[in-house]
Amino acid sequence: MSSNVLHYDELKHFCQEAFGGFGFNEKDSAVITDVLLLSDLYGIDSHGTNRIVMYHELIKDGNIDIEAQPEIVMETPVSAVIDGKRGMGQLVACYAAETAIAKAKTSGIGLVTVRNSNHYGIAGYYSLMACREGLLGISMTNSRVSVLPTFGKTPMMGTNPFAISIPATPQPFNFDVATSVVPIGKVELYNKLGKQLPLGWGMNVDGLDETDPAKILAGIPFGRSGVHPVGGGTEEFGGHKGYGFSMVVEIFCSILSMGTTSNHIMEEKGQSGICHFIAAIDPKIFGDPSAIQEHLESYLDEIRNSEKATGRERIYTHGEKEVEAYAKRMEEGIPVNDKTIEEMKALADYLHMDFCQYFPTLKPLK
Amino acid sequence: MSSNVLHYDELKHFCQEAFGGFGFNEKDSAVITDVLLLSDLYGIDSHGTNRIVMYHELIKDGNIDIEAQPEIVMETPVSAVIDGKRGMGQLVACYAAETAIAKAKTSGIGLVTVRNSNHYGIAGYYSLMACREGLLGISMTNSRVSVLPTFGKTPMMGTNPFAISIPATPQPFNFDVATSVVPIGKVELYNKLGKQLPLGWGMNVDGLDETDPAKILAGIPFGRSGVHPVGGGTEEFGGHKGYGFSMVVEIFCSILSMGTTSNHIMEEKGQSGICHFIAAIDPKIFGDPSAIQEHLESYLDEIRNSEKATGRERIYTHGEKEVEAYAKRMEEGIPVNDKTIEEMKALADYLHMDFCQYFPTLKPLK
Repeated sequence: MSSNVLHYDELKHFCQEAFGGFGFNEKDSAVITDVLLLSDLYGIDSHGTNRIVMYHELIKDGNIDIEAQPEIVMETPVSAVIDGKRGMGQLVACYAAETAIAKAKTSGIGLVTVRNSNHYGIAGYYSLMACREGLLGISMTNSRVSVLPTFGKTPMMGTNPFAISIPATPQPFNFDVATSVVPIGKVELYNKLGKQLPLGWGMNVDGLDETDPAKILAGIPFGRSGVHPVGGGTEEFGGHKGYGFSMVVEIFCSILSMGTTSNHIMEEKGQSGICHFIAAIDPKIFGDPSAIQEHLESYLDEIRNSEKATGRERIYTHGEKEVEAYAKRMEEGIPVNDKTIEEMKALADYLHMDFCQYFPTLKPLK
Repeated sequence: MSSNVLHYDELKHFCQEAFGGFGFNEKDSAVITDVLLLSDLYGIDSHGTNRIVMYHELIKDGNIDIEAQPEIVMETPVSAVIDGKRGMGQLVACYAAETAIAKAKTSGIGLVTVRNSNHYGIAGYYSLMACREGLLGISMTNSRVSVLPTFGKTPMMGTNPFAISIPATPQPFNFDVATSVVPIGKVELYNKLGKQLPLGWGMNVDGLDETDPAKILAGIPFGRSGVHPVGGGTEEFGGHKGYGFSMVVEIFCSILSMGTTSNHIMEEKGQSGICHFIAAIDPKIFGDPSAIQEHLESYLDEIRNSEKATGRERIYTHGEKEVEAYAKRMEEGIPVNDKTIEEMKALADYLHMDFCQYFPTLKPLK
């Protein structure tokens, strides 16, 4: 997989016009593009531009309704339940985050649970929306089934990411992770590279530990194989704890919203059912926000400056790597592999867009 | 370590009178005893009766003030900050849980952060208090430093447990875990049994992975060695994720309360600084509570009934093992090892209590 480097502005322009081509209005296309491009800039390549084709398929199949308007079906001063009406996940989740932020600003806290939405990209985008307003933000989503409960053979949860973002300098504390031991995208990457997986990442369709990525991936579309939660497939390294954190995400997203649990998402064409939970908390309900922020910054500094393990040069706090990748990729461009370029080119042809016009500096593919 | 079996009623009687002997009034002694005994009944032996001596030491050293009255220093309709005034952790945390529950009943949600408290026993006790009132309960605490940040040599977090409890039948969903790969008590157990640890649980004072439990334990009282977060010491099995969940606990407990972060707890005699976070959420702010509960029960049933991995006979949902242990130990008694019996006996002598009178059926120790 050789890599091409695309400039942020070019990729943004292409992405916006492509979503416009799918039928989204200019404002909505800009929002979707911003979510996908932040993922690319943060170095989370599995959730950025390379997903355009996946979203296009979901639109064509009727899982995503581009005309949908999410609706608040129940609310209190501190909470809301939103029906996403099968809308584009990024648009539904931004609406949920705005609702949570508005409630936090008036009531101190806003908890918003969402049913009947779609894949929303990186979880951290929505917790960071709250963070930019000086609030503590939380974002979770369930997802298509792929994660095994401890001692189980059939996946029952999604990779169920959890994100929390809290204001701090030089960058927010921004913890954004799948509650699975690895994202499915990483298993796919090992497969493309012909590499074996470490023992303990996942199981094959026979319910046995498997190191061949192809044999794990084979059963996933049919809900017959999967990866383990954080900590792996045994209790020895805390796999039952990862399973619990995955369940926490499931409960806040699909149970409290009376939505679809991961094991029933996309059971048929035209149905999605993905559920989110987005919360915002104003730190001023606990004290002086700037004092709280300084207290956090001082602790994060102590951790970063603490002694390193033998052979290690640096201790990261959560969110640092992403901010550094952002600066680098804004400057040097975003690496995109050949397969994604080919998919984007085919998509451009389909939408009658002149691909070369968007990326004038891109070398022609062989 | 041979094991003696004590009846619940006998152990409860002894425990109440011992705490009475320390100077607590009858009501407070009963609360503390109830927290410790639930841990014993749940099979979480590291946090029950065997801790009586530890609490006694902390009282004698002035870390715990038995006269302390926790005080709400700031509150809104949805939140409170409590100064524990160095009170007994169980009493401070029960007060925090009652505060959170009362706020949830009037405002739909109550978030309570606590500074300047002490070791509070099992986290799940306080989330279960909310659960018994039909609410979703959350409980977290930081703790004396013992957990390493990913790639770090110096422990910077405590084992920082996280608990969440939600009403369901036949038992609540009750997820209560340390965010470390294992509790320190488990490393101590391996040491007593002369067993080597699996590689990846902890590091020695030289910042190297260590399988000899004694070499990990040696540095812990001095903050010079520790165990890894859930997922272990590398990113391969998600150790950076466990580190993040540990940080989430730290932020809700010590940062939002302007309290003491784990790396500064008990830095001197007479100071503790342990911080908690206890929340209650009324599910009725999201819909019909009984419909939500049925939705959860149906999902938990699906998981328990899903296919088992090869060689596994059962899939647990969180809280099942504890409820089964409770029934068994209520019936058959609570196993207590010789060392704890000896400590309890010495404590009884110190308090001028007739040990044998409390445990008439106990065989004499050699």
